[in-house]
Formats: sequence, structure tokens, C-alpha cells
Amino acid sequence: MLLRLYRTVVVGLPQAIRVKSTPSRICSPVYSTNDSFQPQHPSLTFSDNSRTQGWKVMGTLLGLGAVLAYHDHRCRAAQESSRIYTKEDVRAHNSPENGVWVTLGSEVFDVTKFVQLHPGGPSKLMLAAGGPLEPFWALYAVHNQAHVRELLAEYKIGELNPEVDISPTLEASDPYADDPVRHPALKINSQRPFNAEPPPELLTENYITPNPIFFTRNHLPVPNLDPETYRLHIVGAPGGQSLSLSLDDLYKFPKHEVTVTLQCAGNRRSEMSKVKEVKGLEWRTGAISTARWAGARLCDVLAQAGHRLSETEAHVCFEGLDSDPTGTAYGASIPLARAMDPEAEVLLAYEMNGQPLPRDHGFPVRVVVPGVVGARHVKWLGRVSVESEESHSHWQRRDYKGFSPSVDWDTVDFDLAPSIQELPIQSAITEPHDGATVESGEVTIKGYAWSGGGRAVIRVDVSIDGGLTWQEAELVGEEQCPRKAWAWRLWQLKAQVPAKLNELNIICKAIDDSYNVQPDTVAPIWNLRGVLSNAWHRVHVHIVP
Amino acid sequence: MLLRLYRTVVVGLPQAIRVKSTPSRICSPVYSTNDSFQPQHPSLTFSDNSRTQGWKVMGTLLGLGAVLAYHDHRCRAAQESSRIYTKEDVRAHNSPENGVWVTLGSEVFDVTKFVQLHPGGPSKLMLAAGGPLEPFWALYAVHNQAHVRELLAEYKIGELNPEVDISPTLEASDPYADDPVRHPALKINSQRPFNAEPPPELLTENYITPNPIFFTRNHLPVPNLDPETYRLHIVGAPGGQSLSLSLDDLYKFPKHEVTVTLQCAGNRRSEMSKVKEVKGLEWRTGAISTARWAGARLCDVLAQAGHRLSETEAHVCFEGLDSDPTGTAYGASIPLARAMDPEAEVLLAYEMNGQPLPRDHGFPVRVVVPGVVGARHVKWLGRVSVESEESHSHWQRRDYKGFSPSVDWDTVDFDLAPSIQELPIQSAITEPHDGATVESGEVTIKGYAWSGGGRAVIRVDVSIDGGLTWQEAELVGEEQCPRKAWAWRLWQLKAQVPAKLNELNIICKAIDDSYNVQPDTVAPIWNLRGVLSNAWHRVHVHIVP
Repeated sequence: MLLRLYRTVVVGLPQAIRVKSTPSRICSPVYSTNDSFQPQHPSLTFSDNSRTQGWKVMGTLLGLGAVLAYHDHRCRAAQESSRIYTKEDVRAHNSPENGVWVTLGSEVFDVTKFVQLHPGGPSKLMLAAGGPLEPFWALYAVHNQAHVRELLAEYKIGELNPEVDISPTLEASDPYADDPVRHPALKINSQRPFNAEPPPELLTENYITPNPIFFTRNHLPVPNLDPETYRLHIVGAPGGQSLSLSLDDLYKFPKHEVTVTLQCAGNRRSEMSKVKEVKGLEWRTGAISTARWAGARLCDVLAQAGHRLSETEAHVCFEGLDSDPTGTAYGASIPLARAMDPEAEVLLAYEMNGQPLPRDHGFPVRVVVPGVVGARHVKWLGRVSVESEESHSHWQRRDYKGFSPSVDWDTVDFDLAPSIQELPIQSAITEPHDGATVESGEVTIKGYAWSGGGRAVIRVDVSIDGGLTWQEAELVGEEQCPRKAWAWRLWQLKAQVPAKLNELNIICKAIDDSYNVQPDTVAPIWNLRGVLSNAWHRVHVHIVP
Repeated sequence: MLLRLYRTVVVGLPQAIRVKSTPSRICSPVYSTNDSFQPQHPSLTFSDNSRTQGWKVMGTLLGLGAVLAYHDHRCRAAQESSRIYTKEDVRAHNSPENGVWVTLGSEVFDVTKFVQLHPGGPSKLMLAAGGPLEPFWALYAVHNQAHVRELLAEYKIGELNPEVDISPTLEASDPYADDPVRHPALKINSQRPFNAEPPPELLTENYITPNPIFFTRNHLPVPNLDPETYRLHIVGAPGGQSLSLSLDDLYKFPKHEVTVTLQCAGNRRSEMSKVKEVKGLEWRTGAISTARWAGARLCDVLAQAGHRLSETEAHVCFEGLDSDPTGTAYGASIPLARAMDPEAEVLLAYEMNGQPLPRDHGFPVRVVVPGVVGARHVKWLGRVSVESEESHSHWQRRDYKGFSPSVDWDTVDFDLAPSIQELPIQSAITEPHDGATVESGEVTIKGYAWSGGGRAVIRVDVSIDGGLTWQEAELVGEEQCPRKAWAWRLWQLKAQVPAKLNELNIICKAIDDSYNVQPDTVAPIWNLRGVLSNAWHRVHVHIVP
């Protein structure tokens, strides 16, 4: 696997050069970032770059500072404690009750007493409890400073037992054995296929979600594709010609960049399953993320294959190169009218936040359909065709559709509902989390809001009294183009907590520029697949007097 | 006024000839239909025409049959009762308690005992109680049959006093004195300016709303424009040329037809004002109607004036020829991107349901912006220009915007909210009406559903138990094109009423093809202007055991 990985890296270099044209982003991809995350190589760090509007956008840069710092630190560490711990020892210390241990390189630290002092908040440090700091420091370049390392050194309690790092043996019988290594912060909803979401407090930390914690929704094992031999097959129009495009061929089309929020239809399903059982993964609020995508516009590629917008209804069908043991590939489709509309900005994307796509996100090429449900953004794209009907894939015809609350598995007729394309208005609270304890005085409430179809979020109303009164949150993140508001808005509200209260019932609801609003409650939008869960988001917190 | 009216009619004839190209519609406009309704001239009747899909579309034809029938009937009437009544006598008999009288021509009928036998339902006959039948028979051609007239003859009680029909004198001081005569079925929310809606039971009787009962939303007195001298001024682009278009000039552009539902932003405001006082007319569920519009596409006219889609945001500003005493005209604007998009089908309309526009609906030319709030469909259009900013009119900048429930008249800042353009998903119950008494067994529930922006209604859920359980209504009316679902769907549900219930809490909620839904309750979407009232519609009815 590593061999294959390094080959990908070397081959990927020409792509990296292309990345340099990306404005306001520094990128030196010496190490591969093709896998979602390689914990042994802290190669990805993000730095804040101010943009014209003053909003922060995370850029990527090589964590060289961290590596140097690590060597520097190691010299001093030799003079300190030399007790030896195993990784198991460290893993057992992952709560305030048992103690909070972390590692950096081979050093072990007991930061139990530091958790409450962590400038980024205790919850963020707790994400690393019982394991290595590197994956998290890779996300937050602020840690690569001398005073941070000095501060950490005070908590050193020993060294890690120098274990042999045994790479997992590939089991031929396990189709998932070759899946990439993932970032430890991801909350896993399903290991095989891999489905995971970032924790809410990381999700809205950045307007652009760092690649390693971008939510991952796989339906099948992750293919391990060789970019040298990769070909994308575009079925030609009658009178046109079919194309078999290498990556280099794809790079020859004009490169188009767009910031797009992807959301799984099942985001927030866990709230729906509390009303009544549903079939599906228990996504919390994190099946949504935002990236800067770059690639060829689908309309340009289709035009080269002779396709034109037709008067009759037609669909562009996508097939992935991921497949089940019977050889059935993932597939989906979108209307031709959207595909051919340059303003819809549908991409055959080969870059995600200035990097080649990570394997979990479709390396080397995926579809990005701004404003549309994640299920249509087909990854590991192998084939594109224009058909008179929607894709016949299970995921287009027998899944990802909405139904009335009265429909159950005995009565459902999937042919009666349209496939989900544009998604409805959505918002959620990411801080504080449900069940948290907050201090009286002022509480900072944070979250995200997004709507499908390019409709911009114009307002987020927040209530701390269960919906009796409302305050407007401050919208942060990039302002959006009219009709092309493909990305979310982050928001926050500093609310005064009335005296003598011992709890808050916090609610958020967003409004888009068609003045669509979220429904008040979950039960009336309940559906047997638990999709389209966009009722007001509610968080109950306790107040320390 | 009548002189002016007849001049309009004669001049309007060339327009009428154009109408013949309208498919599946019979039209012989010998009498003018330019005024919303002339009760003395039963010139408008609607007949059902089957369309391919089997949906009914109302066409217009001259009520010649009614006129002939009336003469026939008169001969027999001479042999019957000859008691003489005044119009006042008739008007006093407008309820089951006082008796229900109606007139046809000069004949007076006491139909009190027939009300419950009326095949169209008692509520429809009661709309005519105390007045002439002609305006209603004009809407329902089914009455123009011998057996209907024979049946009516049985209820004759006398003749109308042959009064001199005094046309109201024009008072120079009253700017509204020249407003057209309206259909008596309209429920008037404001006489000056005239604002009125059809009663719900008529609203969903036809997929296409007959012109005389199409909801009317005027902001100012109705201008009385001479089609011979009418000119539409189109300000040219830099390098292009300004246009001064006569009606004949406008007819030379390709004629484009489209069925579009118009909805006032204030529709269903009366439900919002029950939560807390709002400023605005007390519209019930009837500030919405559907017509087949024809005219020149705005994009074609703008192109002739040299306008092109610009990279920067721009707006098309419309000015009406209606104005207040200071000379300030009604005005509004839409984004240039929508105006220039042929697929958005924005019209400079000169026909409504195969007729020249009625005066109340903008004669001779109005804007029709499919999928967008009624306020932008500027009537009596005088001027069109392309600007870098939205229209500076009061109605664009200081009205027709949505706010949080927390905003009141002391805190409102109109600059902070976007002007309403596309409207959110909407639906309402038109039958039975709130407070009605229905029989046990089966109840038929009817209503409409519509969404802005061309989003199709995909489902209407109906509850008869206050939202605990839901049933899917049957959608009727024309199926809509994807992305161009400009018109409503009507719907109905025949629901079984569980035994032993003495009341029903009926609710409807609609879902559009972006899976947007209506909010559960009104209070959280309350706003100081009472616009965008699209919570679930609720109707409470009593059951006769």
C-alpha cells in the first residue's frame, strides 16, 4: 500500500505544480496528502490567510516547523522523565476521570491539569486525549510555536515504548483492507464502508473544512487508482465522439474553481431516528463540509463529446470506479439542464483545497454539483453518459428520496417520489453541544447554515428560550454570489443569559433568499430513510450558577 | 367612462384577432372584457376544454346562449308573477334567515328552498344571494342549459322595478372614481386602492382563475390608458438605443405564452395578524391566482435595446403608469440575470387568459415574472431601465421584505433584508372552510399548493387530526416542467372521518422539489409587515353526527 501511495505522490507532483495558480493559498506538497490522513507524517498544516472581506480561509502548508520543533524538543526531552509507556497505557488515559494523556513523537504528556486551560477550549484538546497530538496540530498551525512546546514540556511524564510499527496486513478476503488511514478526530458512523463526520466543535472552526476532517460518505470500498493509467470515459452524443480522458487530458480543459458545501441527505438523521426508527447511518450534525474544488467544468467536457442542451428532458449519468463484489458500481445522475448550464458550475474535480483529491474523496476525479445533495457528487468517476432517463442505480432510484411520514417499508413506492437533487434550507448549532454545562453571564452560540440550489442564507434566528423569543445571529464566512450561493455561512451569537436560569433551550433556524424556512419539528418531516432532516436544531444546556 | 371603455373595445379588436392563435381556447370577444367585470353584459363564459393530460382548462366564449335563453325565458315569464321589486328589496334577501333572492335580467327569484339543492353546493349559490346571477353564470357555462332555466323559472316571484341605470358621476376630486367595475364575488379588503380576493370555494374551482375573479392588488388608482397612444419606454444600453414601443410594436416581438401563478407577499396575512398586530391588508387565502399570460419576452425587448447579461450585478427597474397625487409611480425591480434568462420566461404581457389584460390587471401591458412575488409584476407598465442598483421605489426598498419576529417598527432597518423575489413553498385549504360543519363519513378536502422559483410541488400532506397522522392528497391540475413549475397544483383528499368524532383539525403542508417544507406554526415566522405567511394551513370543522 505504501509503495502504491508513494507512486501516487510522485505522479501527483505535476498536479501540485498546477496548484500554485490557486490564489491566497500556499502549497508545497512534498509529502502526499492523497490519503485522508497519515498520522506518522504530520505533513498538513493550515494557516490563516486574510481575504479582502476579512474572513479567514485556511490554507495548507508543510508542517516543516513542527518537524524542526520536534527535533529541538527531543534534545531537551532526554534530560527529563524516562519512564516508558505503551500506546495502550496512553489510550487508557482519555478522560478527566482517568487522566488525559497525549503523545508527541515518542514523548508522553499528562495534560489532565491543562485541559481546562487550553486556549482553544477543553473540548478541542479532549479530541486528542489518549493519542497523538500530531493529527490535530496538523490542523492548527498555531501550535507550531516555541512557547507552546515549552508549555507542553512541563507536562512530560515519559516516553513511548519503541514498538515496531506493524502496517496492517492486507487481507485478500477483506475488500476494505486497502482503505486509507483516517484522521483520528473523525467520529465514525460505519467502518466498512467508511462513514465518518468531524466533531461539531471542529466543523465550524474553519470556513473551509480541512481535507483530513471533511465528512466522508462511502458506499463501497475505496478504490486505489493509478493516476497514470486512470481514464475517464465520456460517452459521445450521436454524431459526436466518445472521449477517453487521462488526467492530463482533463487538465487541458479550462480550470474552474468554486467553493462548495457538500451535505449528505442523511445529515442530522440521528434526530429523526429519535422520533421513530429509520434505516440509515446515525449522522449527527457533521455530515456537511465545505471545500474549494477545482477541475474541468462538466459542460466543457460534455460539449467536447458533442452534447448539447436538449429540448426534451435528459440526464447525465455518472458511474464510480468503486464497486461491490458483484461488480456493481456506485452511480447517480443529474438533469442535463444543470450539467450544461455554465452558471451551475458542475465540476469534474481533481483538486480539493489546493491538493489532489484525497482517496476518501474520490481520487483522482469526482463530480461536484454545487447546491445538490452529496449523493450526486460521484467519486472515483469512471464513466459519464447522457441518457433519456435518470441513472438506474440503486442510489438514484431506490434511495435518496423523501416520503410522507405516513409511508413505511410496507407501503413505500420509490417510483412515486423524485430523486433528491437540490436540498432544503438547513442549519445546526455546533457550540455549545447538547447536554453541556455553560457559565452564566454570556454564552457564545455557533453553528452553520446552508441552502441548496445556490440560494443564499440571509438570516439565522437563534432562541435561548425554546422558541419564545428570537435573536439574529451574526453571519460569518464568505458572502455569496446571488443565485450561486454554493457554500455555507457560519454564524455566531453572544447571548446574555438571564439571571437565575438553570438551563437554556437553544434553537436555531435559518432563512434563505427565497425566504424558505426550516420546519419547527422533526415528526412531521419524518421519513423511513431518515433523509432531509432539517427541522429547527435544538440544544439543551445547563447553567453553572 | 363608458365612451372610453367602448373606444378601448374597438381598438382592442386587433388584439382579439391575435388571440385566435391560442390553442385549445375559443374566443369571440365581441364585448369588451377589458374591465374586470361588467355585470350588465354577461359576455364572459367559461367552458371546459379537455387537454392531452385530461386536465380541465377554462376557456372563454361569448355568452350568446345565455342571451338567447334569456329572451326565450322572458316570453314565458310574462305569464307568471308580475309583482315588482326594487334592487334594494332583492339585496335585503341575502341569507337563509331572511330568504335568498336572486335576479336574472329583470326577473326576481326566491331560491331559498333551492340553496341546499344547488348541484355546485350551497356556498356557491350563496355568493350570488341578494343580487344578479349573471356575473356567476358568466363563470360557469354549465348554467346555460334549458333545464337550468326551467328549474329557475319555478322560483320566480316577480320583476325588478325598471329603474334608470345611473352611471356613477365621475368626481374630479376622487382619484379612484374611474376605477373599473368589479365582480361581485370578490371579497374586498380595501376599496381605495382596490384590493380583493376570490372566495376560497371559487379559487380552486378552476386550474386557470377566470379573469373577473383573479385576485386584485392595486397600490394606487387604476389608470385608464388609451391603447392607441400608449407607449412603453425602454431605456437603451450604452451604445444601444432607447425604444418607445406602441402596442403594435410590442406585438411584433415573438409571442410567448406561459401559465403562471401570481401570489401577493401578503397572502394569508390574516393568520399572522392573529399572532400579533401587523401592518397590511387582511388577506385570507385568496391573494393568489393563476392565468395563462401572453406577451413579448422581456429578454427579447431588452436585447433590442442593446442590453446584455453583465458580469456585475444589475437590476431591471419597472415603472408603472399608476401614480399618487405627487406623481410618484409604482415601481419595482428584478435582477438582470433573471430578466435576460430566456428560461425564466419573464414577459411583457398583453394578454391574460386569451383576452387583452383587464384594467385591474395592468391594461395594456404588465410585467409577469414567473416564480416571483406579485409585487414585481408591475402593471400599466410605462418604463423599463437597467440599473446597477435595485429600484429606489418605496415598494422595493421599504416594503416587501422579511424580518425576524424580534424586529419591530422601532428597530426595523429595511436596508438589512433582501427584497422578496422568489417566494417560499405555500399551500392552503379552500374547502371546507374554517368553522364549517361537515357530515360524518367522508369529507372532501381541497386546496392549492405552489412554490416560487419554478420549484414544482411534489407532495401535499393532509392531516385531519391536528398533525398527528398524515395522508397524501391527490395532485390535480397541469403537471409542471422541471425548473419551470411556474403554476400551482390544485389538490384534493377524500378522507374518512373516524366514527364518534365531533370535530376535525385539518392541516395541509406542501413540499417542493427542493424538498422545502412549510413551517409548522405562524409565530416563529411572524414579521411586522405580515408577509411570507406560509405556515401549515389549519381549518377547524364541526361534524354533524
